[in-house]
Amino acid sequence: MITTQKTMAKAQAMFATRRALGPFVGTVAKKLDHYSQFQPSSLSIQQYLDFGRNGNAASSFEFLRKELLVRLANIMQEISLLPPKLLATPSSKMVSGCFNDQLQVILKRHAHVVETMAEGLIELRESDGVDIAAERGIQYFLDRFYINRISIRMLQNQHLVVFGNVLPESPRHVGCIDPACDVESVVLDAFENAKFLCDRYYLTSPMMKLEMHNMVEKGSPINIVAVPSHLYHIMFELFKNAMRATLEFHGVDDDPPDIKVYVVKGSEDLSIKISDRGGGVSRTVLERLFNYMYSTAPPPPRDGTQAPLAGYGYGLPLSRLYARYFQGDLFLVSMEGYGTDACIYMKAVPVEASEVLPIYSTSSRRLLTQAAQVADWSHPIPGQGQNSRDPRRNPNCA
Amino acid sequence: MITTQKTMAKAQAMFATRRALGPFVGTVAKKLDHYSQFQPSSLSIQQYLDFGRNGNAASSFEFLRKELLVRLANIMQEISLLPPKLLATPSSKMVSGCFNDQLQVILKRHAHVVETMAEGLIELRESDGVDIAAERGIQYFLDRFYINRISIRMLQNQHLVVFGNVLPESPRHVGCIDPACDVESVVLDAFENAKFLCDRYYLTSPMMKLEMHNMVEKGSPINIVAVPSHLYHIMFELFKNAMRATLEFHGVDDDPPDIKVYVVKGSEDLSIKISDRGGGVSRTVLERLFNYMYSTAPPPPRDGTQAPLAGYGYGLPLSRLYARYFQGDLFLVSMEGYGTDACIYMKAVPVEASEVLPIYSTSSRRLLTQAAQVADWSHPIPGQGQNSRDPRRNPNCA
Repeated sequence: MITTQKTMAKAQAMFATRRALGPFVGTVAKKLDHYSQFQPSSLSIQQYLDFGRNGNAASSFEFLRKELLVRLANIMQEISLLPPKLLATPSSKMVSGCFNDQLQVILKRHAHVVETMAEGLIELRESDGVDIAAERGIQYFLDRFYINRISIRMLQNQHLVVFGNVLPESPRHVGCIDPACDVESVVLDAFENAKFLCDRYYLTSPMMKLEMHNMVEKGSPINIVAVPSHLYHIMFELFKNAMRATLEFHGVDDDPPDIKVYVVKGSEDLSIKISDRGGGVSRTVLERLFNYMYSTAPPPPRDGTQAPLAGYGYGLPLSRLYARYFQGDLFLVSMEGYGTDACIYMKAVPVEASEVLPIYSTSSRRLLTQAAQVADWSHPIPGQGQNSRDPRRNPNCA
Repeated sequence: MITTQKTMAKAQAMFATRRALGPFVGTVAKKLDHYSQFQPSSLSIQQYLDFGRNGNAASSFEFLRKELLVRLANIMQEISLLPPKLLATPSSKMVSGCFNDQLQVILKRHAHVVETMAEGLIELRESDGVDIAAERGIQYFLDRFYINRISIRMLQNQHLVVFGNVLPESPRHVGCIDPACDVESVVLDAFENAKFLCDRYYLTSPMMKLEMHNMVEKGSPINIVAVPSHLYHIMFELFKNAMRATLEFHGVDDDPPDIKVYVVKGSEDLSIKISDRGGGVSRTVLERLFNYMYSTAPPPPRDGTQAPLAGYGYGLPLSRLYARYFQGDLFLVSMEGYGTDACIYMKAVPVEASEVLPIYSTSSRRLLTQAAQVADWSHPIPGQGQNSRDPRRNPNCA
């Protein structure tokens, strides 16, 4: 979701005006404990849609007033369980310190929280590294932290677009949800924009061969209830990767092989496959592509001149979270020496597309804090890494 | 690995003659405790090869005498931790009772242990079902149990072929390992045999379009150090599935679409992709395909007339274990309404192809016995099921 500075400012103003959270200052710990006892209310994309169409501003505010705090409090409890070394980095202090300020400050700082958290990890890695157990815990936590963040911005944005002054992208949109998202045009859009960057850098770019298969309404275009900006974010990232791999592998002199894209709508799943012939990666490399700690990208200049996230190497793990947010998913399947398939899944049925939210619980507390486990296999279990959310998994698992 | 009755009989005879395990009877529990304290020695396929070429029968016997017991004792400890309801089924009693007999009896009974274990699960499911935690534990255990079994049969077979009277498949073979396994011929073999069955049942079968890409020695055939019977087992299973899906989805009257196979040798991985247009499955169906408890196949006749394993629906999870045994892997990636890609990985470098063996440890004990965990996500985490080895994972994870 694209949340502009304007949106943020609007949210700040709204909350500041209503003074709903005035008493919050000074009683942070108590409030935190209180709200973290509630379980986040996961909404389906259908519920978002229905409420956007039939709800009203007052009930939206009442819901948000509690739900935003519940979601923030749940993840703030987990932040406090991170490895002390990570919490001691200046960047982490900045993130976790947020809760001590008033909500409007939180919201403002929240806009840069991904970058700030990423810098915390870089600071940690540059100091003395982390042990395996801590690394697993960080991977587990960051998937939860960022999906929580996606959900909070979704809640804010829906409120501001549906009931506030922020304009939707089109009259058809309900907030940032398109009830009839034309998947083909999002794919073409993402491809064209990735191609523009690719042409600028390599002076050439691969072509796309696109096949659409609507197995539910044969011959019709493929429309689903979706957040187009999320799907665009994912596709743009994957196209950039596929183009770069293709040109780096085949060189820029010959005609590069096409990038093949298949979009299939079934009765349960919308599936998209982006198939490149960019030489692929081995399983040992693949497993690192989703690892926040092992991002190989050099840190970007910290002067704020670059696009958000550029250079942190978080494109793939964040794209996967955007896919997973409404119960979809993202996988990479690679053949080393040949090419890579990126597979994206989304729920085709809007009542099944419910938010996946982290819950602060005895399980998450244990997973975040436990020490390294005794091995239960002679070797890291192959084939697990890229899909792993469990910090106890061996990080070397392919 | 194909271990014949003859091989078994030979093993029994050898062990019976040497009386190495005579004192075992009557002191089972003590021995079990003793040997389960040792960690199984994982061998790489290169070590198997070197020992097969340069080792001698006496040292092989010395190694096996301890190692077989260590591997058996490690998994027997875990059997005792299975849910009481499962252990109470007649079939499970038969499996776990084995250890009370002499080793020659174990070896004999061992030949049918997969079927017997499968029947235990069917008996359990037919009684009153299992709770989720128990189901996860069973899935975790069976992956360990069967991979342990593959490893034990490998050890036995290598000894009997290299130092005993059992003939290898070809003079080039070292035991059941082919130091220059021609991958193309194994693929063709598996395809032809699956096609034979398919033609018999459907009176037609899809064609195969095979592409071989040797990226290490360009233009050369693809040879790797491998156990051809394991690779054949995997490919035969996957071809049968791809053919059945193709013909069920497209009907038998039209020309069915080809099954495309890509084999790529990179510097680390040998990758094989079998791509069918058999209509695919949704993610919720896919996750069950590797679940021992959710096998949808009707139990086969118990009169012993059918081929081993036929009908238990264990083809996919066991194929995945054959792939994982030497640090390879197997994934299914499906587009519901279109088709499925089956991806097999094997280590291309023999020193990296080490056995993956289960280790009885505090971790495995905990994973086998712990109760259901409090949720840490609002919904089952998508995209995890088919790759899950962790019993604490929600079984509904797609």
